Formats: sequence, C-alpha cells, structure tokens
Amino acid sequence: MEEPPQQPPPDVAAAAKDLPLVLILEPLYPSFEEGLSKRFRFLKPWESSSQQPLEAFLADHADSIRVVFCAGPFKKIDSAIISALPRLQLVLTPSAGMNHIDLAECRRKGIAVANAGTVFSVDTADYAVGLVLDVLRRVSAADRFVRGGLWPVEGKYPLGSKLSGKRVGIVGLGSIGSEIAKRLDAFGCIISYTTRTRKPSSPYSYFQNICDLAADSDILIIVCPLTDETRHIVNRDVLLALGKKGVIINVGRGPLIDEKELVRCLVEGEVGGAGLDVFENEPTVPQELFLLDNVVLSPHKAVLTPESVQELLQLVIANLEAFFSNQPLLTPV
Amino acid sequence: MEEPPQQPPPDVAAAAKDLPLVLILEPLYPSFEEGLSKRFRFLKPWESSSQQPLEAFLADHADSIRVVFCAGPFKKIDSAIISALPRLQLVLTPSAGMNHIDLAECRRKGIAVANAGTVFSVDTADYAVGLVLDVLRRVSAADRFVRGGLWPVEGKYPLGSKLSGKRVGIVGLGSIGSEIAKRLDAFGCIISYTTRTRKPSSPYSYFQNICDLAADSDILIIVCPLTDETRHIVNRDVLLALGKKGVIINVGRGPLIDEKELVRCLVEGEVGGAGLDVFENEPTVPQELFLLDNVVLSPHKAVLTPESVQELLQLVIANLEAFFSNQPLLTPV
Repeated sequence: MEEPPQQPPPDVAAAAKDLPLVLILEPLYPSFEEGLSKRFRFLKPWESSSQQPLEAFLADHADSIRVVFCAGPFKKIDSAIISALPRLQLVLTPSAGMNHIDLAECRRKGIAVANAGTVFSVDTADYAVGLVLDVLRRVSAADRFVRGGLWPVEGKYPLGSKLSGKRVGIVGLGSIGSEIAKRLDAFGCIISYTTRTRKPSSPYSYFQNICDLAADSDILIIVCPLTDETRHIVNRDVLLALGKKGVIINVGRGPLIDEKELVRCLVEGEVGGAGLDVFENEPTVPQELFLLDNVVLSPHKAVLTPESVQELLQLVIANLEAFFSNQPLLTPV
Repeated sequence: MEEPPQQPPPDVAAAAKDLPLVLILEPLYPSFEEGLSKRFRFLKPWESSSQQPLEAFLADHADSIRVVFCAGPFKKIDSAIISALPRLQLVLTPSAGMNHIDLAECRRKGIAVANAGTVFSVDTADYAVGLVLDVLRRVSAADRFVRGGLWPVEGKYPLGSKLSGKRVGIVGLGSIGSEIAKRLDAFGCIISYTTRTRKPSSPYSYFQNICDLAADSDILIIVCPLTDETRHIVNRDVLLALGKKGVIINVGRGPLIDEKELVRCLVEGEVGGAGLDVFENEPTVPQELFLLDNVVLSPHKAVLTPESVQELLQLVIANLEAFFSNQPLLTPV
C-alpha cells in the first residue's frame, strides 16, 4: 500500500489557542492533564503570572469562562465562585460525590452539573464486597498471622464466619449500592436497604428507618452520599441495633458514621467488626483500631483503579465535547 | 398447659452400649464428639487400656467394625487398615478431599465411601473470591499500610487493579469451582475452566490444557483435587503463561503448585501476584513471600466456618443413620 503523504507538523501553540477553554482550580493528575490537554485549553489561576488573588483572576477572565472542572474536596464551587462567573454554564466534577458543589445555587442560576456517573460504582462495589469478605473471613488478620510467623507456633487460626445466608443491609441503594446487592446476591446473602425514598423497582426489602434496618442485618454497608441530613447517620443507636455480632462496612464518606462512637463500640465489643475505607479526619485513623483484629482499615481507595481512571478520562472528554458542541451531557446530575 | 410427666433419667451407660459402633483413628473436634456421642459409640484405639499396637487393637475388634470415620490427612485409610477390617462396609470422611483414602481398594472390596459432599464448597468459594479481591485491590496490603501509620506520612496508597472484566481461569470446575464461577460472574468477570473431562452443561469456555488456560487468563484459580496426576499441575510453564500481570489463587492443596517455582516467579516479577491458602509444607510458608505486598497468605482456612461445621455435623449424623438403617447414603463418593 502506498504511504499517505506526510502532514506538516501543526503549529501546536496556535492550535491550542483555538481549543475550548476550561477553568480548573487545582492541578490535575498528570495522566488526566495529558489526556485532556490535546482537546481543551486549561485556565489555571495558580499559574497566573501576576500572582493576583483568585477573585481578581476570575474577574479578569469572567467573560470567557463557561466551564469549570473541579474534583474537590478541597476546592469548592460555592456561591462566591458561582457569582464571580456570570457566564458559567457547566460545572464538571470527576467524582461521584458532589458535596464540594453548591448544587442549589447551580440549579437556581441554570448552571448544568455533570459528575462521574457510574464510572466508580463497580470498583467501589467490588471493594465493599472485598471488605465484607475480609472482615467476616478474617483475611487480612490471617495474613498478618502468617507473616508474623505465628502459624507454626500457635497452630490453627480462629475461623471467621460464613457469608452465605447473612442478612445484608445497604444504606443507599444508588448505583454503587445496587452493584453491591447484585454481587452479594450471588453469595446467597439476603439483601435489604434503606434510602430517602423507596425504590419500587428494587426486589429487596425496604426499611424506612436505618435503626430498624441495622437491627435486622448481620452486615450493614454504608454507601449513601454525605449531606447535612446523612452526617452521622450511623450513630450509637444504629450501632447498638446492629449489635455484638454485626459488621459495619463504610465505603461512603467518613462523617456518615459517628467515628468516636464506632471506635467505642468496637473496643467494647458492642459491634462485631468493621471494614472502613473512609474516616472522619483522613488521613488520621483512630489508633485504637490498630489493635483490633476484627477491623480492616483502608486508606480511601475503594473508589478507584487505573482502569477506571481511563474510563473516567474518556467520560470527561465526552462530557466536555458534548457541551462545546451543544449536545446533551452524558452524565448530567 | 399441663407439664408432661418427668421421664426417669435413662441409664446412660447401658444405653450407650446399644448405640451403633464407629471406629475413629484420632480424637474428634470436641463439638463433633459432643454432637455425635449421643447417637453413636466410638471405638478409640488410642484409649485402649492395654496400650496394644493399632494392628492388634483392630484384630481384636475386627468382627464388630463396620464403619470407620477418618478426617485425614495424617491418619490414612490404606490397604493395610482395609485388610485388617474384613467386615468394613463404610469409610466416612468429614472432608471434601479424599487423598487419605485408598479409593481403589475400597472399590475393589465393595466398601462404600462418603465424604462432606458440598458442605465446604460455599465457604471455600467465598474465600477464593475474597483472596481474588484482596490481591487485585490490595486490601491486606492497604490495611498493613494504615496500621503501620504510613497514610499520613506517604499519602495515597498505590491503586490496585479492577476486577470487573478480568478473565478468570478456574482449574477444577467441581462444586467449589462452580460456586466461584457463579460469584465472579456477578462481578462481570469472563470465566473459563479446565477439567479432566469437559462439562457439557457448563456455560463457560473449556480449555483442555492448563497452559493454554493460563495464557488466556488474568486470574488463575486452583481448586482441583490433589491426585498423582495433579501434583505440581501448576509448574513453571503454567506460571510463565499466566505472566507478569497474572494473579494465581490456590484454595485447593499446596502440592498442586510447584511452590519453589511460584516463589521464584513472584520474587522475580514473572507473575503479578498470588493469594495462597495452602502450601506444600504446612504450616511452613516460604519466608521470601513475607516481603511481598502483592501476595496474600492464609493459614489453610478457606474451607471452614463455624456455621459449616454445624452443617457438617448434621451431614455426618445423617450419613451414619442412613447406613445403620440400610438407607442410601446422602453423600456417597
């Protein structure tokens, strides 16, 4: 086959000037920046040569900013930012959670919001099931036992407990919760759930009250969004309802659980075990938990794998391209 | 309601004399002994008052021994034992594996054999999936990272890899392998298998050769019985076919894998990771593995939970009662 004629190298700088503009408030992951920078031009306040404060920077560029891309949780799209950007039309976040975005204000001003959709649901659900198995069957603790050289010395390691047949209560049956349910169904678990509003299409038992759900569950999995209403939704009453043999799993956000109470209940044996990927004051983890073999501790990593980062990158590109070509967003909120 | 009249306490010793007799070769778990001793009388060579050797003990009782109950793996029902017991009609084992029983000799002499059936399948399958999740998503390693106080110091822990979409090769699609397949199906994995003979009813892809299966798998799960043919079925060729990103899980028996080669491949990065519940020389675990974060080590405990021990007890009782009342065994081999 004949080779196509060589194209002259494009004038990269000139071409970049024509790319659609997106405001970002903090540096992106390098792989993200690399994947996006051929298609979009980023406005980066922290690189501003004049070192002006953010407000002044935004005022200077307000006319050209139609999109802001913000991961949170440290930088927030609050009413001050929204007011500073009168031409803002889209807030895009590469997360499933949106507690760093003032959604009410966006709605009031007609600003669209798009998130990561269900890209993270599968990884988070997988990890939640991993934590369930790990706590019940004591996988991490047994690994510690073997690595510590204790097997030849102490003999058999205590058995864990069976997963099949256990009653699992899921707090938040969104896309992650549904993926968790699907997986644990295959293990022969009996699934129930609580959500703000009942899901009529769900085959699982609904509980209106989290305390009642906890009382009827062997395993309680927390996976609802963090809002003012759900902060400390797992309090002492819920933990006591779950009981001495109950296991709690949190792959949502740390403040969904009253952590002080959880630590107290675990230390005093009022709750049977826990698998925790998130904590109230990350990266600080209560040291009392380090001594417990019925607890699995994880550094907020349920949500992500390299494979999902690539899927997410494609989704962000697709959302931005849809916006700039006046097509419907793929994952509007 | 009127209370039923009090029964006089039965003469326990006299009643026990009438119970059906079962030979055991080593002490039972206490909970097992307790659960069985009301229904059966055990003949225990090691409690023989005359301290005679086993052969002499068996010769003395040969006329009355129709059943032997033997867990293995240390005590074996070999041809010597079988020859010493001319009235033997049933060998019962509370395990799924039967490599401690000379099955050919039993068959030749028309001695029935019954095992644990599928009582352990669910627990073993659950644990295998736990190991898969643990190795891929680095659950135990992350727990070690947090307990070591490294999260605030080193920041983010490296991401694991996604389970969904991975190609899983199962070596041995019996009851455990099928339960594993059912579970990993729900995670969106693509399942293949190899067995001695193809299972026409299975929906999964069949490979005749374990090397071909390994080459086509991201995760290889070893769960076949240990026999002369399957010893070291996972050799260096299989491990290299699985490859640098491949993960191997063993919940079968240690000698199914050439452990020296596995250790070498893991240390040299020729295999991506491993989740091992069984080892060639238990309870000895190769110390080189203690240094690896891509390996999860477990002290041969996949098979059992307290809940299954209870199910097993009921099954043993049911098999013995069936035998002594000339009914068909529940789990004949």
